[in-house]
Amino acid sequence: MSVKLAFQDWIYEAQESICEALENIDGKARFTKDPWKRRAGGGGLSRVLASGDVIEKGGVNVSVVEGPLPDVIREKFGVQGTWFNASGLSLVIHPVSPMIPAVHANYRYFELYNREGGGVVDSWFGGGADLTPYYVFDEDIRHFHQVHKEVCDTVNHNLYFRLKESCDRYFYNEHRGEARGVGGIFFDYLRVQSDKSMYDWLHFVEKCGNAFLSAYLPLIKRRRHEPWGEKERHFQEVRRGRYVEFNLIHDRGTLFGLKTGGRTESILMSLPPVVRWDYDFKVESGSREEKLLKLLKLPKKWL
Amino acid sequence: MSVKLAFQDWIYEAQESICEALENIDGKARFTKDPWKRRAGGGGLSRVLASGDVIEKGGVNVSVVEGPLPDVIREKFGVQGTWFNASGLSLVIHPVSPMIPAVHANYRYFELYNREGGGVVDSWFGGGADLTPYYVFDEDIRHFHQVHKEVCDTVNHNLYFRLKESCDRYFYNEHRGEARGVGGIFFDYLRVQSDKSMYDWLHFVEKCGNAFLSAYLPLIKRRRHEPWGEKERHFQEVRRGRYVEFNLIHDRGTLFGLKTGGRTESILMSLPPVVRWDYDFKVESGSREEKLLKLLKLPKKWL
Repeated sequence: MSVKLAFQDWIYEAQESICEALENIDGKARFTKDPWKRRAGGGGLSRVLASGDVIEKGGVNVSVVEGPLPDVIREKFGVQGTWFNASGLSLVIHPVSPMIPAVHANYRYFELYNREGGGVVDSWFGGGADLTPYYVFDEDIRHFHQVHKEVCDTVNHNLYFRLKESCDRYFYNEHRGEARGVGGIFFDYLRVQSDKSMYDWLHFVEKCGNAFLSAYLPLIKRRRHEPWGEKERHFQEVRRGRYVEFNLIHDRGTLFGLKTGGRTESILMSLPPVVRWDYDFKVESGSREEKLLKLLKLPKKWL
Repeated sequence: MSVKLAFQDWIYEAQESICEALENIDGKARFTKDPWKRRAGGGGLSRVLASGDVIEKGGVNVSVVEGPLPDVIREKFGVQGTWFNASGLSLVIHPVSPMIPAVHANYRYFELYNREGGGVVDSWFGGGADLTPYYVFDEDIRHFHQVHKEVCDTVNHNLYFRLKESCDRYFYNEHRGEARGVGGIFFDYLRVQSDKSMYDWLHFVEKCGNAFLSAYLPLIKRRRHEPWGEKERHFQEVRRGRYVEFNLIHDRGTLFGLKTGGRTESILMSLPPVVRWDYDFKVESGSREEKLLKLLKLPKKWL
């Protein structure tokens, strides 16, 4: 089977098992199923859960789109080809509790062609997973990184450190001088190379996605009964504002989706449910809130 | 006095009188005064009011910044010069009540030079004012447009219609296929021309700014006691999400500010205080909420 078709099979399976596990742990809300078609070719299946016991808003989306590559994207991304096929699984979880980190993961595969139906002129995988806590529990963050390191270690022992650094670099709110969260792994342009076929990368990406639940679910289990009140909720809502800023100002994926005529509601399902912008919000010195802000100023070695 | 200095005097005066009038009508909250300096040159005075009786969040900011023009901006805006000076008054009001429209106004003046301290190689005014209602009261929208038309008519009888069209074009959420609000006037690149000196444009821009209160305050007075409940508040918060999307994805002013090292908190004071993103939010057929959405699909002639 071609890499493209094998990957497409996998993203639909992974979507199914991730949604099922999240529903089980939430215990209350269910994922909707919203299939959609795109006029210029392709479509997807958006699955969204709202107002759960644990998950305030979560989306696990598959999309497989194909069409002419817009000029603006070709220039911005510095790639060749005039026709593209992009398949991906994208998920974002915004928990109710400020004690449980928000999480984002994405696994995607691109093929470029010189014309519709033409041979592949370029192809690559991209993806990763990263954590956005509002209150810092070092062991949670370390666990999330550790699970991803184990997957990276199956390729080579440097890979985690490279992808962790890419993640810190990518999820950065330049205009705020701070990271969006505490990272994880991020990769892009994983292309064929002397010692790696696209099938090798396919297996790596699948392993990453299959590890997602074991990286994240333990954090929900540990923190779901952690107490919090109005103050912590307020802080979470303010910090969610930074999440929105990153996604709308800096995120290449969001830009790519919106510019290539992706389904707006599926792309923007990543935005948190309730968000607050207080002018010049300040935290108390020595507080738990300050601990987070300090952490976001400089990437930390978790492992 | 040079156009630049005359305009700078005016923006500080206008800031003062607008803040005073808004405090009076709010009756509860007060504008803070946050002076700031920019490392690369210049600074400003941010004035923000929060948690008022009428105004949930409002900002009336002056900034006067100068420095090297970043390449990305020169290309994006298609202008000449390597050094810039930008002065502006920018205001955004997000009322508590969903029955009172949010409003935005901006009046700005740019000068470009080939070097620091060099002669002016290009200069222009930009600005305008526009309304973002959540519930539609035709007479309110018409009043806002009428006041601005009267100012435009002092220049010529076509001007309002041109600037109204520019406004509809500019405040458009391409990725949603809908307008941000119901417009007003928008102008940019008002340069010297055979029958207009920069002083003529200065007077026009000052007149626009001086008319702001008479365009907007009557809407507060008429609607502040209009009843609303949870449903209307929910709708307002969802629609505020579209406001955020416009500002962070499409607004050139926000981009310019963030890329030229403007003060992030002053630039992003424009974002609404409490915002909601519901996945695939739908309104009831025949409802007041649907009336708004229909209105935003196609620009309407208000006068």
